[in-house]
Parts: sequence; structure tokens; C-alpha cells
Amino acid sequence: MTQLTVNDFKQLYQPLLSKYDKQRQFSSFTDVGELPPELQRHKTPVWLANGQPFESLFPIQEIDLQIRENPGSLIDETPISGKYSTTKIQMYEPKGSSKLGLSDALQYSDTKGHTQLLNITKQIISRISKPKYDEWDTVITCGSSDGLSKICKMLLDEDSTLLVEEFTYPNILPWLNYAGGSIVQVKLNVTPDPSKQGIDPEAMSELLENWSDHHPNENKPKALYTIATGHNPTGLTQSLEVREKIYNICCKHNIIIIEDDPYGYLQMTPYDSKDPMANPYATGDISVDDYVSKILSPSYLTLDTEGRVLRCETFSKVAAPGLRLGFVTGNAYLISKVKTLNDISTRFASGASQAILVNMLVDMGAKYQAEHKSAPAIDGWIDWCMKIASEYTNRRNHLFKCVHEQPAFKEKKFELIEPSCGMFVTVVVNLKPEWKKTSIKRAMDYLYCLLLEEGCFAVLGYKMTVDEKFSMERSNFLRCTISKANDPKVFELGAQRLNKAVERLFSEYGVNEKFTLGKNGFKK
Amino acid sequence: MTQLTVNDFKQLYQPLLSKYDKQRQFSSFTDVGELPPELQRHKTPVWLANGQPFESLFPIQEIDLQIRENPGSLIDETPISGKYSTTKIQMYEPKGSSKLGLSDALQYSDTKGHTQLLNITKQIISRISKPKYDEWDTVITCGSSDGLSKICKMLLDEDSTLLVEEFTYPNILPWLNYAGGSIVQVKLNVTPDPSKQGIDPEAMSELLENWSDHHPNENKPKALYTIATGHNPTGLTQSLEVREKIYNICCKHNIIIIEDDPYGYLQMTPYDSKDPMANPYATGDISVDDYVSKILSPSYLTLDTEGRVLRCETFSKVAAPGLRLGFVTGNAYLISKVKTLNDISTRFASGASQAILVNMLVDMGAKYQAEHKSAPAIDGWIDWCMKIASEYTNRRNHLFKCVHEQPAFKEKKFELIEPSCGMFVTVVVNLKPEWKKTSIKRAMDYLYCLLLEEGCFAVLGYKMTVDEKFSMERSNFLRCTISKANDPKVFELGAQRLNKAVERLFSEYGVNEKFTLGKNGFKK
Repeated sequence: MTQLTVNDFKQLYQPLLSKYDKQRQFSSFTDVGELPPELQRHKTPVWLANGQPFESLFPIQEIDLQIRENPGSLIDETPISGKYSTTKIQMYEPKGSSKLGLSDALQYSDTKGHTQLLNITKQIISRISKPKYDEWDTVITCGSSDGLSKICKMLLDEDSTLLVEEFTYPNILPWLNYAGGSIVQVKLNVTPDPSKQGIDPEAMSELLENWSDHHPNENKPKALYTIATGHNPTGLTQSLEVREKIYNICCKHNIIIIEDDPYGYLQMTPYDSKDPMANPYATGDISVDDYVSKILSPSYLTLDTEGRVLRCETFSKVAAPGLRLGFVTGNAYLISKVKTLNDISTRFASGASQAILVNMLVDMGAKYQAEHKSAPAIDGWIDWCMKIASEYTNRRNHLFKCVHEQPAFKEKKFELIEPSCGMFVTVVVNLKPEWKKTSIKRAMDYLYCLLLEEGCFAVLGYKMTVDEKFSMERSNFLRCTISKANDPKVFELGAQRLNKAVERLFSEYGVNEKFTLGKNGFKK
Repeated sequence: MTQLTVNDFKQLYQPLLSKYDKQRQFSSFTDVGELPPELQRHKTPVWLANGQPFESLFPIQEIDLQIRENPGSLIDETPISGKYSTTKIQMYEPKGSSKLGLSDALQYSDTKGHTQLLNITKQIISRISKPKYDEWDTVITCGSSDGLSKICKMLLDEDSTLLVEEFTYPNILPWLNYAGGSIVQVKLNVTPDPSKQGIDPEAMSELLENWSDHHPNENKPKALYTIATGHNPTGLTQSLEVREKIYNICCKHNIIIIEDDPYGYLQMTPYDSKDPMANPYATGDISVDDYVSKILSPSYLTLDTEGRVLRCETFSKVAAPGLRLGFVTGNAYLISKVKTLNDISTRFASGASQAILVNMLVDMGAKYQAEHKSAPAIDGWIDWCMKIASEYTNRRNHLFKCVHEQPAFKEKKFELIEPSCGMFVTVVVNLKPEWKKTSIKRAMDYLYCLLLEEGCFAVLGYKMTVDEKFSMERSNFLRCTISKANDPKVFELGAQRLNKAVERLFSEYGVNEKFTLGKNGFKK
């Protein structure tokens, strides 16, 4: 553990903030200056200052939530489960309650988030991703998109550079554009070898050491944006060893690490082609402690001695995207800057969403503790995360099993990269060398047309690159999701149609093309 | 009605957009280029593209809302009402339903807002504030703060100017700072004469006609930010005649009108000192039609032939702030630009909040229609707005009655400006001329200390100015809210304490001062 204070963080990271930071101050118009020492405040003042509506004017006086005992399974006949419990959001909660009442939830509130939800986020971080310093903090955002766009705003100006993995979640580009600044990509190792997956530390180090040779017109990067676990789109996960190397490189070059981790809790167990439907989660072979200490990948936060990491989590993947709730964890100085950006834009995340999440998680915790006396309350939520991870393992199993049965797969016309976690599977198409020589994009676009005819929507790999040209030679893949299916038949049909499309590619492309495509595929 | 098209609006208003507009494009990575004409799309494709979690993985499968039949009253013994009905948010709604099911509400969704809520906003505008052109549209925001900060982002650069009323909601300043740009204030007529209240059109016209004399270093303003109805902090409302003048001035100088209207629906009936508790709402003397056509002040939208007005509404004051839901109405071109700012930052407002609001309003509409056969569904919501306006009228009556009984009020040491609507009452302190000569701020700060000792929180008027110096001579007032009280005693005590503080001011100030204050009052 290091003993850095908020002031130390200010010294370290203020130089990396956007030049607009100073004018992004927020002070309430109800704050006055220094009060005279003689003043004796009344002990029971009446409130005629800020315009908060009294809670009896809210049209809602109670909310009851039907909470599923278990997430649905792909093989359910109906997506509505019979087993559920009811969680109440009542108007008032006793003082100090871990739950949130409507009188607070529906009112104006602290822009950092409600205390009850902040407490939960701190329990999550303490249990799973505790930093190696004490002065860390969390702030609630209106989902990770909001948090990440605010982090970009906090750090970047038009002359700032952000380092990004060459394949990435493409929305980082508009967030960056919103902030100003430019992007430089870092090479990924897209490999089945778990010890080498993800950012190539040697390439990154070389890039930074010889920055002005590579990028004579760009400032050195202020931050690295990385999806280290269950990377989108490739599904890959950086090993602890890779993370340690990257972390040290970032320390050396004074780079903030923005760790976007939407998928980390959706950790799958390895696929066994001999027992395709095996799922150690479902058989109860994995305890919450195992999940936390052995299954989940360690966050960059757990390596962080310098307050250099900003970890972005979301409740979208394990609870629900429509809640629009996420949180950022980092050193208290930078977190206060994210809060300031809340102050001057969105104010605070939906209190209705916060109350739904808080009260649901508190009840999950109480239920779990009733069966596991010594467990911390947050384990109720982690148990739910495991159930979701289990269902994603099931879904992965279904898709993999179906794909493994396809002739074009057996003939190695295409293959799968096994994701360690997340919602996505990478389907690598083994294009013929002569197709690669002309245009990988054109061949993949042709395949996309075939997929539309055969009836299968997937995402083209090159659409998820920072720079199509730089990454095209590694873009002969499709990203397929396992999240949306409502029936195992979706995977059966999906695999068959994928197979048919690939077979057609190999028989039609360059020989007897059905589609008129330009030299480089689709026109933009 | 004018027949302007989206393209006309583009011609008119693109020149007023921020220079960053072009780089704020958003396109989904699942969009590909132009598809070949030969392609025959499969009619029942399977979905392996975007990562939307299947709805049976959401932990919530139903939400039941207890909806009050009537808002609470100040004289209720308990803020929880006995009379309520239950509104369900079920997992699935039939196609075309006006309600929102959880399968959609908890999912990723359109960044413009859910269709069901957009439909409601269009019903509100069509019923109450219909523009004089057809191609208007609405977009959902995460509350008005979010909407207004996005409008600032959409329009303003560092060299842009925003015109603002000299007294205003002070958070406009951080929104503006977030966007860049500078502020120029326009003089207000703070007068009891309803025909003259609000922005002084002559002063505004003179300012713009002789811009370079007044502001040689600022560009001409792109937009005017105005709280035209129930202005914050003064409670004043611009007459239709004043609005017409302002609108014409804005047309002449090509200025966009940003109409922030959080309080418009909280319209009070005039106070009658002979019958202090009179409330025509409560006695049923006002129909929904009366309220819409006679009581509510007309939005700038209703004058708008050129698509020049962006009206910001919020559900915070009449439903609940914690929902974080607002909407912007304006011409379809500018609304599409607000949507783009959603795309690249917050994405979409809480779906849980949207579902709560939509399903509640749909049920309110159905109930109202059961009793009023020919009424449109939205009248159920308008009826609720009237009930809230009625309660604010009650609250205003209570405070006014208590204040009118105070000796210092009778002696004209202070007076009240009657608000036409909203949550705030302006208490003007009739400072002695010799105090005004030295420092109005110091005298008001002294009064603030006395209020703290006597036990009454209010907001200092000068804290709600754009430029303290410019407006100080009109800043001898306090802003008091009527919204937060939970009991009539709050107003009784508040009035007594206000009285005592003012009496003490007149006996202590400059004579035998208890508090050590600098020459200009509080230090910052």
C-alpha cells in the first residue's frame, strides 16, 4: 500500500487535465462567503432556500419490484420466470438505512450519486478490485458512455493524444471527438495464447520510447483507453503479466490508464469440445470466493500504487442497460473532477434507477447472507453476477457446439477464437491468400452480403478498428454476439447460415460473383 | 403556419452551430456502405450483431407503481396518501401499445428517447405550445440541466456570446463555461406591472443595434437564454406583448431563443389579501381548457414561424426531479443536433425513468378520459399539473398570509413581489438610502447573518446575478421557496423569523453591529 494523499494526486495529475479544467468550477449559489465567528446559528432553522419539491407532491408513493430468483436460461419456454421475490422502494427509509427511499430517490440529489449506491460500489471495489493505495473513491455516472465521455472531457484538448487498442469499441471515437484530441493506436496480439493476448507491451514501449519518430505531429499520449478483459470485439483478455508490463510502461511515461470493463463479470469457463455443454458454474463447482479470486481477471486497479488507473464499470451487462448506471473508480482527486463534470452537465443519474438498483442489491445481499452467515452483503450481488456468467457460458457452449458441427468449420474455412468472457465470439474467416492480396475488405464485404442473404446479422471486424488500413490484415473476422438469442435454435440457425455463407464465399468469390461490389467492397 | 422544411432550417441555423458540429457525427459501427442491388435479404434473419442482453437476464420482471390520486397538501398529517392506484410496468407490452414494457425500457434504446415518451411530449406541445410551423420535433434529455448544457455545446464556441437575463438561474454559467463562450446580460424590468415584467425590449433592442459600442470585444450573440414564465429568481412573467417584441428583435438579429420553462405549469391565481386562502383551482372553478387557454402563459414556440425557439421542459417540478427527464422542442434540424449530442455522451435517459413516467401518464389519461369522454388522453397529465399548481397556490397563500401579518412588513421595511408562478417568492428589503449608498451587498450579508441566527434559510438575490456589480442596485432582495415546507408552521415560523431579522437589521445595522463584516460583506 502507498500512502498518497489527495494533494499528492493533484500534484501528479493536474498537469494532465484539460486546459479547461479551471473554468469548470461549480459552486452552489446558496454558498455564501466566510461567516463571522460571532454568528450563532439557529438549531432548528426553517428552509426557504433551494426549490426542492416536497415529497408528497411526487405522484409516486411506492414502487414494488418483482426480482427474479435466477436469470432466465436459453432453454426456458417463457422469458418470464415463475420464481421471484418482491423488493419495495417505500417513501421513507429509516436514517442510516442501506436502502434508498423515494423521498430521496425522486428528489434532487448529490451529483456524485446517492450514498447508498456509492457504498455498494465501494463494497464491489473492496471485494474484487481494491487498489494499492487508500485515497480512492467512486462516482456514479449515467452509464459507462457518459463516464467515458466525461473522462475524455476531463483530460483531453485538441492537441492531446489518447492511446487506443487498434481494434476497439468504436464509440470511443465520438467521445474523443466530443472532447477534441486525436487518437493513436497500439498493436494488439490477437492470439489464442492467453499469456500474450491483448496489447503488445513491446510494441507499446517501442512506440512511446520513439514517439517523435512515429508521431512527429502529435503530443505524447495523456492516457491509454483499454478494454483489458473480454476485449471488444476480440473477446481477448490481457494476462496479469501483460498488465504489469503495461502498467509499468504507463508509469514511466506518465500515462493515465482508462480501464473500460463492461464485460469482466461475464467470465466463462474454458470450452471443452469433448463435453460441449459442460458448465462448472451450473454444477455449483465454483464458489463466490473462487469466482472473485480465481476466475475474474484482476483489474488494473489492483496493481495501482500511483492512482493512475480510472476503472469504468457499468451495471448494464449484469443488471440492465436501461438503468443507465455506471461508476468510475480512481484516485480521489480525479474522481472529484468527474463529479465536477456531472455538476455542469447531467447533474446526477436517475434516482429512480439508483433506488431500483440499490434496493434490489440490498435484498439480494440479505437473501444470500441468510444462507451464508459469514459472507459480506455484496456477495449476494456477486452471486447474481455468477449466475449471469453461467448463462453466458451456456450460450457460448450452444454456439460453439453448433459451429463445431459445420462442414466449413471442419474444413478450416473459418474458425473461432474462444472468448474468455463477454458477449462476443470472434469468427475468423480463413480467406484464400490470393483474396488477401487484393482486398480483405472486399472479400469480407462479399461475405457480409452472403450473410444477409442467408439470414444472419454479424458485425464486420474492420468496422471496429481505429484505422481500417493499419488493421486490415488482421480484420478477416466477424464479431458475433451470444447475448441476444431467445432460443437455442438461434445458434443452430446462425451456425448453419454462417456455414452456408462461408461455403458460398469459397465457391462464388472471384469465380462467379453474384454481387456487384467495387474494387474495395461497399461504398461508404 | 409556415411551411419551412428541415433543409430550410439547416440553411438558416447551420451558420449558428458550434464549429465542432461537423466532427460530432455519430454513425453506428453496424452500418455498412451501400448494399448491391442484387442482394435478396433473408426474411427471418438471426441476430448475432449488437450485444443487447436478452431480457430474461434482467433481474427485474415487473415493476408496480403506487400512484397518488392527488398530490399531498401542506395540511396533511402524513405525506403518504391513502388513496392511490397501481400502475404496472410489465415485461411485455403488445405492439403499438402506448405503454412501455420492461423488455424495451431496460434494454439499450434509441438515443432520442422511447417512442412512447416522445409521443407524450408531442401531445403536450400540440395541446399547449404548438409552434407556427409543422416540422418541429422533440428529444428526451436526462433533465433540463442536461438539455441546456447540450444546447450550449451545440451552439457555442469560445468566441460565441450568449445573451442572458441579468438575474437568472446561476447554473447557466457553468453550462456556458462547459461549452466555452461568454455571457452578456440584458436588463430586466423587475416590476409589479404584469405588462412590463421581464426583459426590457427597448434595452435589448438598443443593446443589439449598438452592439459594437457596448461590447467591442464580443461577437454578436447567437442565442438568448430566457426564463420567460415564473422567472428564477424573481418569479416574474413576460407578457405576450413583451414576448412578441423580443421574438421580433431575435428574428431581426438572427438570435436563437432558448426558452427554459421549468415552472410554467405551476401557475398561481392572483393573491387576494382580503381572502388570503382563496384558491380557484381547489374550488373546481378552472377547467383543463381554461388552464390551457387562459391561465398558462404562451410559450415562445406559439409565436415561432421561423423555427427559432428551443423550448426546454422538465418533468422535475410536476412529477419528480429524481426521474431526470426533460425534453427539448424545436425545429427538426436543431433537435437532430441535440440527439447527436446524446449519441456521443449520455446515449439515452434512464429507461426505468421513462417507463415509470410513460405508464403513469397513460394511466392518468385513461382515468381522466373515463370521466371526460371527449377529452384527449394528455388531459389526465394536465389535470395533475393543475393539482400541483393548486397546491403551490395554497403554499403561496400560506406564506403571503403569514408575511402580511408581520410588523416589519406593515411598516414597509420589506415587501413581497407576487410571483405569477413557480416555486419562489421575492422578498424585497427596503434598505435605508444611506445603506444603499455604502454597500447593498454588505447590508444584505448582514441580514443573511441575522437570518441564520433567527433560523431561516433563504437565497441572497445578488447570488443569482450574472454580474454582481451591474445588478447590485436591484439586488436588495431574498429568494424564498414555498416548495420544501412540510407543514404550514414552516411559513408561520419563516415569516416571524424573517420579520425578526429585518427588525434587527433596522436596529443593529450601522449602529451596534454584532457581526464583523468587511467593507463589502462576506469574504469569498
